[in-house]
Amino acid sequence: MLKEAVYHRPKNNFAYAYDAETIHVRLQTKKNDVQHVQLIYGDPYIFKSDEGGYSHLPQTAEGAQDRWQYETKPMIKTGADDRFDYWFAEVKPTFRRLRYGFELQDQEETLVFTEKGFFDHIPDDDVAYYFCIPFLNAIDVFSPPTWVKDTVWYQIFPERFANGDPSNDPEGALAWGSQEPTPENFFGGDLQGVLDHLDYLVDLGISGIYFTPFFKAYSNHKYDTIDYMEIDSQFGDKETFKTLVQACHERGIRVMLDAVFNHSGYYFEPFQDVLKHGEQSRYKDWFHIQEFPLVTEPQPNYDTFSFVPFMPKLNTEHPEVKTYLLDVARYWIEEFDIDGWRLDVANEVDHAFWREFRTVVKEAKPDAYILGEIWHDSMPWLQGDQFDAVMNYPFTMGSIQFFAEQSISPSTFSNTITNVLHSYPENVNEVSFNLLDSHDTPRILTLAGDDKRKVKLLYLFQLSFIGTPCIYYGDEIGMSGGADPGCRKCMVWEEEHQDLDMHAYVKQLLSLRKQIPAFGNHAHLRMLEADDEKGIIVYEKANDQEKLLFVLNNSAEATSYSLPILKERDLKELLSNEAITMGPDSPVHMQPYEGKVFKILT
Amino acid sequence: MLKEAVYHRPKNNFAYAYDAETIHVRLQTKKNDVQHVQLIYGDPYIFKSDEGGYSHLPQTAEGAQDRWQYETKPMIKTGADDRFDYWFAEVKPTFRRLRYGFELQDQEETLVFTEKGFFDHIPDDDVAYYFCIPFLNAIDVFSPPTWVKDTVWYQIFPERFANGDPSNDPEGALAWGSQEPTPENFFGGDLQGVLDHLDYLVDLGISGIYFTPFFKAYSNHKYDTIDYMEIDSQFGDKETFKTLVQACHERGIRVMLDAVFNHSGYYFEPFQDVLKHGEQSRYKDWFHIQEFPLVTEPQPNYDTFSFVPFMPKLNTEHPEVKTYLLDVARYWIEEFDIDGWRLDVANEVDHAFWREFRTVVKEAKPDAYILGEIWHDSMPWLQGDQFDAVMNYPFTMGSIQFFAEQSISPSTFSNTITNVLHSYPENVNEVSFNLLDSHDTPRILTLAGDDKRKVKLLYLFQLSFIGTPCIYYGDEIGMSGGADPGCRKCMVWEEEHQDLDMHAYVKQLLSLRKQIPAFGNHAHLRMLEADDEKGIIVYEKANDQEKLLFVLNNSAEATSYSLPILKERDLKELLSNEAITMGPDSPVHMQPYEGKVFKILT
Repeated sequence: MLKEAVYHRPKNNFAYAYDAETIHVRLQTKKNDVQHVQLIYGDPYIFKSDEGGYSHLPQTAEGAQDRWQYETKPMIKTGADDRFDYWFAEVKPTFRRLRYGFELQDQEETLVFTEKGFFDHIPDDDVAYYFCIPFLNAIDVFSPPTWVKDTVWYQIFPERFANGDPSNDPEGALAWGSQEPTPENFFGGDLQGVLDHLDYLVDLGISGIYFTPFFKAYSNHKYDTIDYMEIDSQFGDKETFKTLVQACHERGIRVMLDAVFNHSGYYFEPFQDVLKHGEQSRYKDWFHIQEFPLVTEPQPNYDTFSFVPFMPKLNTEHPEVKTYLLDVARYWIEEFDIDGWRLDVANEVDHAFWREFRTVVKEAKPDAYILGEIWHDSMPWLQGDQFDAVMNYPFTMGSIQFFAEQSISPSTFSNTITNVLHSYPENVNEVSFNLLDSHDTPRILTLAGDDKRKVKLLYLFQLSFIGTPCIYYGDEIGMSGGADPGCRKCMVWEEEHQDLDMHAYVKQLLSLRKQIPAFGNHAHLRMLEADDEKGIIVYEKANDQEKLLFVLNNSAEATSYSLPILKERDLKELLSNEAITMGPDSPVHMQPYEGKVFKILT
Repeated sequence: MLKEAVYHRPKNNFAYAYDAETIHVRLQTKKNDVQHVQLIYGDPYIFKSDEGGYSHLPQTAEGAQDRWQYETKPMIKTGADDRFDYWFAEVKPTFRRLRYGFELQDQEETLVFTEKGFFDHIPDDDVAYYFCIPFLNAIDVFSPPTWVKDTVWYQIFPERFANGDPSNDPEGALAWGSQEPTPENFFGGDLQGVLDHLDYLVDLGISGIYFTPFFKAYSNHKYDTIDYMEIDSQFGDKETFKTLVQACHERGIRVMLDAVFNHSGYYFEPFQDVLKHGEQSRYKDWFHIQEFPLVTEPQPNYDTFSFVPFMPKLNTEHPEVKTYLLDVARYWIEEFDIDGWRLDVANEVDHAFWREFRTVVKEAKPDAYILGEIWHDSMPWLQGDQFDAVMNYPFTMGSIQFFAEQSISPSTFSNTITNVLHSYPENVNEVSFNLLDSHDTPRILTLAGDDKRKVKLLYLFQLSFIGTPCIYYGDEIGMSGGADPGCRKCMVWEEEHQDLDMHAYVKQLLSLRKQIPAFGNHAHLRMLEADDEKGIIVYEKANDQEKLLFVLNNSAEATSYSLPILKERDLKELLSNEAITMGPDSPVHMQPYEGKVFKILT
């Protein structure tokens, strides 16, 4: 057994409270090394004496030694990546306290792994050897809003979704869709435009809108805020927004805004004050100023987002800045009833600020959703005290590489996805924000070399994955576009210029996701097969009631594929709605880039 | 290279802010596998274009690709345990942002390890591969009070240290030291007794007192609180305590009290109210009641510490309980100027409570010390938002097994200690509370089979270790005693019954710790040798100015030991104050259980 590959540490993705009664435990071992793992577990305070009685601290007397009263249960293997196997078990400890370890068995030996290392037997003279979840306190359980699990998001870049009110168009606004987008041009999209098209979103199957910023700002993307308390006049007024939120809620659509709290815009009044008054400004500590007077060339002498002079970093440790931003967070919830905040560049703001932010937001609306923009491993922000979720870029990158770019093999993709699923607790995965593209990246159709079959496969994977998917406006009707600004074209509203087939496909998938719990977020996903020769992946979505098999042919060749894992069964293919009987030798015929979803009928 | 052994994850002991400018990075590899490790690091936003210019996001154009601008620096090997080597480097990133990875080299290959796995080259087309410390925000830095680093604690069990005021003796108190302690008897120790003996502590070299509880309670140990706002009358009154704290402060001694917030006592008024009024009690939610009416047999039907009916667990999620306990925390700081709180059964109380507790305590006294009682891996409590330190039981257990019980070999001990040092960040280790015994365990002399030579070796190790040591009252004069209640004997004050030689030895070590920065907390400790045949360990304490070599003969045999690591040098042995010249072939003569400390003179 390769001892060096065995890893466990509590209070992260390896051991966590799933809910107020349940503890999930995972273990990592070398890939294909260990054959069986048993969880050894018990209450820290129950000991059995040699004479048969019980005690609550181990009593050691001459010739007698009380023994820890433990149980064991098998762990199941939930997946493997390139280096490791992952094992899982859940426990509902009677007294909400848990000490635990692992018994590992391979061909040659059986070893016990604990916090204090390896043993050749189960040590039971003390509990101090064992890993510990000391007490399952409900308040510490990672508890995102329950509605998120069933939400399908739609991302709207307000300047480009729809122009519903030409009277508020900014000066020099161009005719809708008349030109390619540039970093500077404007087309007059606004809130009334969104209001006008809500029924389109309902019809598609959307239940949440994520708006990139629309507060008063200088640029067309509005990430350079001038006033966090005002809607930029080019988008309409507060009354319209109030109406919009209400109209969304009436249609079962939640509304999430973009909180750009890492940095302000250059024209944010306090920053202008510092530019003007230098060290005398009462706002000088609102930012991270390296020296006075402020310069922007050759490089700003104040901290910024990246090195962008017009995005000065806010000092979120300063009490006045905190008060101001927390007021902003509260204001848009209390006055407009929004349902969530997406936090821009969330990783560069201090943890202490986000803890206070969470308190304020949840006081204002207990079931508000807090979503952080973090591109890397985010476990430190997902412990229950800060965010409800992060944007799932590891999912994005793996999916794009595999389906759109065809740059990684089925087995590499399977490893990546298994790794994604095991990087966080299950209750974190269930509300993860799964995007394929955004205003920050090229559109999926472009990434897929304009091959719509690949985009469909991407959608099938995204919309059947664990977490909450987000569709970037217009992707569903086949819009294309390269990196910013190309991905920010005006939404196409003329049906004759929309890809209605793509639209129908997305709508079908969203409908399946809604109707079949195991299609969406109410199941476990397990990667079953990755055929590097044929370019095929197979995965399972299963819960106690249902089992779905997904077969995706990510290759340019038509092929036949049989599923040895399958016993003779009656199946229904969900996309075609065809009933078939299949066994281990029945081949599935797959067109190039085709995906099939088999529901096992019992 | 064994890829499965390579481990790193940021924002814990593997990567953390050491101070507001410095990031520490550690890596784990298989023991004796990798020969060189380079840290690859840089700002996330600095890219170099093919044409020689710089950009802040990688631009990809036809035939051109901007490259991440990284640097490298060698990592040093800081130790090994039974499975792994540990590597270390520190970085002070100019813009307080860091992306980083590792280049590992063994006999056969060079590999690059990143958050996205292994590569055969340094990927520089994107930073998303790399591990990330997004921004070094000062408020998130783990920052314990600066005074703790140089504190030597002395633990006092108030009922048994000294009886300074017979007028407050509890009814039936026995004559001082006239009998063996039992779980029920009383001897009349009090606060005046401590006040009377402060100069004794100063003379010994003590700079902090940790008091086990003295609030109003039923038992002699007072862990079953009746009133958190009152001093138990058997110990004196609040005036005496105020005088005591002031007298301590005048002598450079800090005062830490014991906060028993996990559970109250059975006679705590709110619990009595629930016992009396059942479901009608306004305090029913202050506890975790499983069903009414409350019973204590055969097992309490309410949550308790362990299964002890007279210690009902407090519901620290309840707003009133929180307010009450936080008032307690604030009151003893504001009214009596205490310097720290030791938190009993800290691991079973919710994290959310401890975060609020920290805010309240630090508002009342910014440099107060918060010490949690946790016996297992405590990283989740030591992220800067909860505790300043935990009681270092892994250190305790390893030291007792090696020196007192002689149950583990020098190499096992060396592995344990290296593991202890690498389990937490360095700034956490520096304020760790290093105890050898307490009111909860047998005394060290008893654990060492009454062999005073072993106790001296234990002291030499403890008092030269990284962290802040604590001496349990009376150990320094050779008191003995088994598990509770044996370890709670009355302090011996008659010099003729004290072990004055032990006292002088402890005093000498504490004096060295104070005079020589490298002896105490102002150095790195590295285990150098572990000779399983001779029973010898050698470790180094070094900083930029000084280097000390500790040679400990943990065996019953006298022996000679040479230090091949040593070049021909002039040394001073600090315990004997003898100057000698030594080289790789000069043997050090060691008596059984003798320890020597060589200061290298330059």
